[in-house]
Amino acid sequence: MSAYVSMSEDEKETGRVEAFSDGIFAIAITLLVLNMKVPPAASVTASHTLFQALLSQWPVDLSYLLSFLTVLIMWMNHHKLFLHIRRSDHPFLLLNGLLLMGVTVVPFPTAVLAEHINTTGARVAAGVYSGTYLFIAILFDLLWRYASHGGRLLAKNHNPESVAAITRQYKFGPISYLIAFLLAFASVWASIGVCMALAAFFALPGIRRKRSPKRLARE
Amino acid sequence: MSAYVSMSEDEKETGRVEAFSDGIFAIAITLLVLNMKVPPAASVTASHTLFQALLSQWPVDLSYLLSFLTVLIMWMNHHKLFLHIRRSDHPFLLLNGLLLMGVTVVPFPTAVLAEHINTTGARVAAGVYSGTYLFIAILFDLLWRYASHGGRLLAKNHNPESVAAITRQYKFGPISYLIAFLLAFASVWASIGVCMALAAFFALPGIRRKRSPKRLARE
Amino acid sequence: MSAYVSMSEDEKETGRVEAFSDGIFAIAITLLVLNMKVPPAASVTASHTLFQALLSQWPVDLSYLLSFLTVLIMWMNHHKLFLHIRRSDHPFLLLNGLLLMGVTVVPFPTAVLAEHINTTGARVAAGVYSGTYLFIAILFDLLWRYASHGGRLLAKNHNPESVAAITRQYKFGPISYLIAFLLAFASVWASIGVCMALAAFFALPGIRRKRSPKRLARE
Amino acid sequence: MSAYVSMSEDEKETGRVEAFSDGIFAIAITLLVLNMKVPPAASVTASHTLFQALLSQWPVDLSYLLSFLTVLIMWMNHHKLFLHIRRSDHPFLLLNGLLLMGVTVVPFPTAVLAEHINTTGARVAAGVYSGTYLFIAILFDLLWRYASHGGRLLAKNHNPESVAAITRQYKFGPISYLIAFLLAFASVWASIGVCMALAAFFALPGIRRKRSPKRLARE
Repeated sequence: MSAYVSMSEDEKETGRVEAFSDGIFAIAITLLVLNMKVPPAASVTASHTLFQALLSQWPVDLSYLLSFLTVLIMWMNHHKLFLHIRRSDHPFLLLNGLLLMGVTVVPFPTAVLAEHINTTGARVAAGVYSGTYLFIAILFDLLWRYASHGGRLLAKNHNPESVAAITRQYKFGPISYLIAFLLAFASVWASIGVCMALAAFFALPGIRRKRSPKRLARE
Repeated sequence: MSAYVSMSEDEKETGRVEAFSDGIFAIAITLLVLNMKVPPAASVTASHTLFQALLSQWPVDLSYLLSFLTVLIMWMNHHKLFLHIRRSDHPFLLLNGLLLMGVTVVPFPTAVLAEHINTTGARVAAGVYSGTYLFIAILFDLLWRYASHGGRLLAKNHNPESVAAITRQYKFGPISYLIAFLLAFASVWASIGVCMALAAFFALPGIRRKRSPKRLARE
Repeated sequence: MSAYVSMSEDEKETGRVEAFSDGIFAIAITLLVLNMKVPPAASVTASHTLFQALLSQWPVDLSYLLSFLTVLIMWMNHHKLFLHIRRSDHPFLLLNGLLLMGVTVVPFPTAVLAEHINTTGARVAAGVYSGTYLFIAILFDLLWRYASHGGRLLAKNHNPESVAAITRQYKFGPISYLIAFLLAFASVWASIGVCMALAAFFALPGIRRKRSPKRLARE
Repeated sequence: MSAYVSMSEDEKETGRVEAFSDGIFAIAITLLVLNMKVPPAASVTASHTLFQALLSQWPVDLSYLLSFLTVLIMWMNHHKLFLHIRRSDHPFLLLNGLLLMGVTVVPFPTAVLAEHINTTGARVAAGVYSGTYLFIAILFDLLWRYASHGGRLLAKNHNPESVAAITRQYKFGPISYLIAFLLAFASVWASIGVCMALAAFFALPGIRRKRSPKRLARE
């Protein structure tokens, strides 16, 4: 086979890895809603209304919101990586698979946090929750280091500055979630607060725009 | 990188946003079926047949039908937007993500409505149900305003008339669902009726065709 | 906009309808597995082994197998249609949406059949089960009639003979499932047997090949 | 229709089979997380902490990990096949559908194994678990034999050596999982150990790279 055919097959295969990853992100983020349980009709009485029953489920809603936004931002970051990555190989597929394993697990620690935020198990729940994000952040870092090392899987004409900017940015994730994980054992709300702050920081367009790899890549 | 490469990457990224959104719409609309519970074998006796047991579940079937049609129409509208949108940026991805959050939540208010349509919680249930659609309709409006403002994310050669037609149409959604939301506290069935009328209005091809943005775009 | 752009947008939109439909078929067919319940550890004793417990679940396995094969064949037929369809419009999207509603519902009648095949509700269960397929078969027929009438949404250079062959074939579905539906009230196993025979008939390549629209289209 | 149009339609249809298969792999691998059950708040007391409750769920976590990695590797192998396959026909679609049926079932034997690894049903559970993989491995073998026999569905310019290399490799799967299946009736852990060793063997890049069909294809 000619080099040209191999090139186009590389791009085709990278496209499939993206499509498979997108599917998993989309399903994991949609399964989060299964944590929301309907208050049974029998539980609604004159003294305990449906409105009160729904309000008392705020830990489920809060953990849903935080997990949805975090997975959404992870999906956005995953795509930013693939703007630079043009080839895939076996170790890359495996690292990406482990990252996706972390993403598919998210509904579970989300449900654990919602159930135990008001019990004596709250610290363990916050540890499991932030620990899952720590695992994913480490995998993001490893995936990018593997793909970008010596430009291994990047486009031939990649911009070294924008690659270095992503590398700097991705070091930040594991450290931040490590802090959230360690804080869980001191204060549940401090740990959740760090997770919220990280979601807000990555979500706020103003801050992010300035260091966007895409903008750098175009300059 | 040349302008050409940036352009094609824009389109590639818009394609991914669509694929991710499609995945979420498809999963959310399919998860609705999980609200349907099988009458247990033990509940079927000579005096209470399976047929009666299934008939008594009409609130589940009705809310399923209404939610399926509403999400289907939202998906159709989402695609109509992307016929005009050619680029994406960080705020756009975030607004689209919040819209998708509303869509993934739909199975929950659908189940709440089915469970409580005959209880004292019926008004709250109808409020939660129409309120979810109000949230999504507002996000649709914001998403389109952001994308179309000054032609920000539209094709260079977009038709200003068809863009203005969509803008007019998208103002209609939040107002209609606000009425449905407010009606919930006066009459459950009036609120559900408005939601049904909206689904029927958007679904009926005759009415819609005349103001279809696609037809306008082609003229 | 030029005619060329409109054409390519038509094909792009048809591609999205297919991708959305594929997603729904894939999710509905995968959700079927949620009907399989694990025998709880406590139910396994010296006198009642796990093997016996799993064997006693044969109605779940049988209904899973039948539903999986039927949905798989429906997906194959859906794709065969889209080999001929090149445009979409509002009524087409709506008919396709109703067809997909039938497909997403399949896990529910599958679970009803599995639960009630040995109860006094067996006939109703078989009626609901075959009735769902009847609904889908009618929608397939309507979708194809709408798309092919006067070549409305077909390729300009479509082969009239292969189109007529599909039309003949699609009349067969509603009649067959109507028979299965009516048989349900006389004999549960006759109704299920017809559903099985239909799945086998469409699945067996030898019979099918001879009237494949694709082969006709290429000749 | 000209030969050219038929060719491009073949490739389009193969692309759809891949997209549908990817969707099913992505959903099945994500549904695995539904096996993880949150320890209820009421179960967490001073004497039995959440941490202990989560630790006692290790069979769920272990079976999750093993199933996720196995399905991930199966997805990787499925894609490697489609690098060589350029056409599809009815028997191919059916064999692929049966393979996908095996994949969608995986969450069930995974849950059976997790529930019964410590009960008297452990051997049956391990047999069901490894038996599912045996079924999938046999289908992989059949699918490839059908597609590659006389180059039936392969690219015209396919490399006979790389095709023979895959054929050799795919014979290995059914034999290995047959051993795991038979071992289940002698020793549960020996059977699970073989499944783990197979996942590790296929996952380890060093060993695999040397016999990668893709590298062969490019040489």
